[in-house]
Amino acid sequence: MSVMAMDQQTATVKGTNSMEINTHTSQGYSNELATLKGKLILMGRLVETQVAYALHALMTQNHKHAAEVLVLDQKVNALEVSLDSLCVDVIACRQPVASDLRFLIVAIKIVTDLERIGDEAGKMARHVVGLSRKSGKGTFEGELDTEFRQLGEQVQTMLGDALDAFERLDVEQAKVVSLSDLAVDQEFERLSRCLFLHMTEDSRNIRHGFNTMRHARSLERIGDHAKNLCEYVVYLVEGRDVRHTKFGVKV
Amino acid sequence: MSVMAMDQQTATVKGTNSMEINTHTSQGYSNELATLKGKLILMGRLVETQVAYALHALMTQNHKHAAEVLVLDQKVNALEVSLDSLCVDVIACRQPVASDLRFLIVAIKIVTDLERIGDEAGKMARHVVGLSRKSGKGTFEGELDTEFRQLGEQVQTMLGDALDAFERLDVEQAKVVSLSDLAVDQEFERLSRCLFLHMTEDSRNIRHGFNTMRHARSLERIGDHAKNLCEYVVYLVEGRDVRHTKFGVKV
Repeated sequence: MSVMAMDQQTATVKGTNSMEINTHTSQGYSNELATLKGKLILMGRLVETQVAYALHALMTQNHKHAAEVLVLDQKVNALEVSLDSLCVDVIACRQPVASDLRFLIVAIKIVTDLERIGDEAGKMARHVVGLSRKSGKGTFEGELDTEFRQLGEQVQTMLGDALDAFERLDVEQAKVVSLSDLAVDQEFERLSRCLFLHMTEDSRNIRHGFNTMRHARSLERIGDHAKNLCEYVVYLVEGRDVRHTKFGVKV
Repeated sequence: MSVMAMDQQTATVKGTNSMEINTHTSQGYSNELATLKGKLILMGRLVETQVAYALHALMTQNHKHAAEVLVLDQKVNALEVSLDSLCVDVIACRQPVASDLRFLIVAIKIVTDLERIGDEAGKMARHVVGLSRKSGKGTFEGELDTEFRQLGEQVQTMLGDALDAFERLDVEQAKVVSLSDLAVDQEFERLSRCLFLHMTEDSRNIRHGFNTMRHARSLERIGDHAKNLCEYVVYLVEGRDVRHTKFGVKV
């Protein structure tokens, strides 16, 4: 991250011997921003793992993976609190401007989205754990519906690509990934219709359809959060708020 | 909001004639923070209206109210963008510390929650509009299930009380309202079980149950967002981050 504006500000206030102070301040500030970004990426990769484990747990009734999602949720929640606190401390101490300030604002936003992705993965995992506790068997004993699996793969790809775009500050990738949320929404709607038909065909399908719908909705929301991440990358790099617009059409 | 810390900082930097500068700066700064709070409350009341209209539209198939929810959604989305921009501007220009900084960080968080409450109301409203377009009649032609109505009332009360707590910075009310999310979650789970039984009893109930479940999930999420608002009020007033804790037990 550029800290040029901060350097100038510090030099103005400090006056003499500013070179040494600036070098130190700048290095410390750069380190803080780098630490923040590193922790955000760590948090992102943790929730990515949560989603992968939650889907695997659902598809194979793997209770170990389901429990792991919930353990990771504690770590993600702790990261949410500590990252927000770090952002506030950096803003208070460094009084950032321009791109540094944008980065800190984006960090505060991203933390919220990542934590909520973790929540959605947690809901899927708790379903598997709950089935295990009650009866030792559940809805997803065999093959999960092809449509659900496909939606899960789409969302995982979208989330991974969104995190890559943030890690590399790749605004072009961010725009492409953001647009892919439309395909996720369409797949979700298609799956909803299929599930409805599946349930009306045979009342024994109702429980399966009902639960699959709940998990599909979680996936659709994870897609929404991944889209948010991408929009923040565009804001961070280009300084433009592109929420509620369509890239390439109204920007 | 206290701007004492900012006054001290300005006085230190500006030196002479600080009294007049401070008075001006402090007044301008106070006005900016007051404007921000006023716009946040406006946004909150708009989403509160969206939720009320969306529920009424669902229960009575009132297409006018459904359309109004979607019109309000545009205003809410515009407020989200402009409020975030205002927060960034104030942070960049005023370099806030202590409670002022907490207020600005909380504003950034609250804006996100309010916009997502609006999204949930929009989903319910679009369902009514969609039914109207397709066939002129829909699922909720008669009385809506008592349980769904009750959940809707609970969530509306919770949201209104959360907004009141923010408006008055009433930390005690914020804690009480936050805890009421547990009752909303329990009501949601109870409704889910009822809907499942309703669907298995008669396949003609499947569409109704399927759609009611979707809207109930939106309400449950609105409750989550209202809880978030309350947690931000506690952070704002007491400076403590109480997310992922239980008030009165682990604080």
